[in-house]
Amino acid sequence: MNKRYIGIDLGGTSMKLGIVDADGQLLYQMEKPTQPEEGADQGLRRIAAYSRELAEVTRTPWEQVGGLGIGLPGFLDIPNGVVVKLTNVPWSNVPVKERLESALKIPVAIDNDANVAALGEAWSGAGAGLDDLICVTLGTGVGGGVITHGRLVHGVSGLAGEIGHIRVEENGALCGCGQRGCVETISSATGIVRLAREAEAAGRETSLAPLIHDSRLTAKDVFAAAERGDAVALEVVRKAADALARVLAILSVVNNPARFIIGGGVSKAGETLFNPLRAAYAEHALAHSAKGVEIVAAQLGNDAGIIGAAGLTADREK
Amino acid sequence: MNKRYIGIDLGGTSMKLGIVDADGQLLYQMEKPTQPEEGADQGLRRIAAYSRELAEVTRTPWEQVGGLGIGLPGFLDIPNGVVVKLTNVPWSNVPVKERLESALKIPVAIDNDANVAALGEAWSGAGAGLDDLICVTLGTGVGGGVITHGRLVHGVSGLAGEIGHIRVEENGALCGCGQRGCVETISSATGIVRLAREAEAAGRETSLAPLIHDSRLTAKDVFAAAERGDAVALEVVRKAADALARVLAILSVVNNPARFIIGGGVSKAGETLFNPLRAAYAEHALAHSAKGVEIVAAQLGNDAGIIGAAGLTADREK
Repeated sequence: MNKRYIGIDLGGTSMKLGIVDADGQLLYQMEKPTQPEEGADQGLRRIAAYSRELAEVTRTPWEQVGGLGIGLPGFLDIPNGVVVKLTNVPWSNVPVKERLESALKIPVAIDNDANVAALGEAWSGAGAGLDDLICVTLGTGVGGGVITHGRLVHGVSGLAGEIGHIRVEENGALCGCGQRGCVETISSATGIVRLAREAEAAGRETSLAPLIHDSRLTAKDVFAAAERGDAVALEVVRKAADALARVLAILSVVNNPARFIIGGGVSKAGETLFNPLRAAYAEHALAHSAKGVEIVAAQLGNDAGIIGAAGLTADREK
Repeated sequence: MNKRYIGIDLGGTSMKLGIVDADGQLLYQMEKPTQPEEGADQGLRRIAAYSRELAEVTRTPWEQVGGLGIGLPGFLDIPNGVVVKLTNVPWSNVPVKERLESALKIPVAIDNDANVAALGEAWSGAGAGLDDLICVTLGTGVGGGVITHGRLVHGVSGLAGEIGHIRVEENGALCGCGQRGCVETISSATGIVRLAREAEAAGRETSLAPLIHDSRLTAKDVFAAAERGDAVALEVVRKAADALARVLAILSVVNNPARFIIGGGVSKAGETLFNPLRAAYAEHALAHSAKGVEIVAAQLGNDAGIIGAAGLTADREK
């Protein structure tokens, strides 16, 4: 009987839980409040109960459940399955793998949320069937997940895929990491809004001015203005695409992945982002490395976290 | 019985052949002329004969030979084991794997010389026992080999590890690849000589002037002058180290390898290179990613090519 796998995407407000078949297809999912204040013991008890509920609802005998994976935001000891410290959830030094394996008698694995989303896309999303790919998430920041030989790359301290901190501007804006000119300061939603604000503050005329003055400009507004032909917005989009393309050009001579998968809120801009991004990549990439490389949108949306988390234990059985 | 493996490092002038045990230790090696003009058919016949000779000399029954690997400089179709075109040897479209497997009845694999050297260091050199590492070869150019999950990364068109073409200077010197400011234009032997020449041409006083005027300055001379305290040479070395450190900082947020292994002629400068390199890495690397990462010299020297080539088929059996 083909195994099924449970995947959990744990955020500060809610957790999404799902059960996935051996091909990475989501069979059923549910959403529950995270209730960070109740502490890790109670949180893990609820996760165990929800997991059994997922199996029951989908009429999956427990012996058919091949494992459970959780994607979490924060500092993790991935090999040992220990949460060191989470972002927005006050869990610290929690042996999640040990506790849940003891409660559920199935293999349990944890990983960070960006890696898990990448694994989801690699398993049954935009990267299905490929051994080498890199996912880039363009949201408040710029995150990433690196897959080689069909498996996630973690690296010696779990920092593989932190590609938002590749520097592309010598004296650029200050990044949260302490460096200047990281791609995250330019190509993230935050970076795009910053560039538009700076252009307007420098006296450039733009239809975005009212939103800027009301402090409610979003990256989505910038893309909408670019589609209307606003010159400042077009320039900002071109700059964000150019910075990201420089990073993809670098990644092409490191791991030379077959496909770059772009996800996150900013990627919803579609061709308004992808057209200048592909053009800038063709310009910056080493001639040979531009061949055979595709830049595509993520396919799984919010489900990538659940599917990839489920894949953590499915992957292990390869 | 533990298998043994044959490894061949094929260059334009000579080929080095060796037989290696299951731990990647070189048992015996020999060197033969490549004789590029004789053509691929005769070259492959000699390789087959030398391989049998290696087994005989080391009293290795043919059944104990687990495979044969060859490292070659040029364009290769690695998965199919076909030489597309070599540098300095006029072989083109030669199905090396098919021909040698048919002649020798053992598994045969080919790979490019930089990858093979990296695999050698990973197997029984400076990276032994590590799953994630990156080798950097500082010679006429800057090459590299990327290892994740204990295996070489090739990428979609075999360009993984071409890290010499990561750009570190916006308007830098023109690189052979057509881009400007690639690390290869700064941190290679050629780059180091160029920087010293340019400083002298700009009127800076340096003990290297006589060698520059005679057109026989080498990177080795620049390091020797730096050790004597020559200000221009110290500045050139610092600049070469800084450019390379920026690249290692980038690689640390892509694959986050446990160790960077620096080989090639320029690496023989030892601490004169490694001290400023480690200092610049600490400055450029994302704070967390500097931890637990080592920058070390390659250990196998010229044997890395034979050992890594032998590892191509040993690796396959993992």
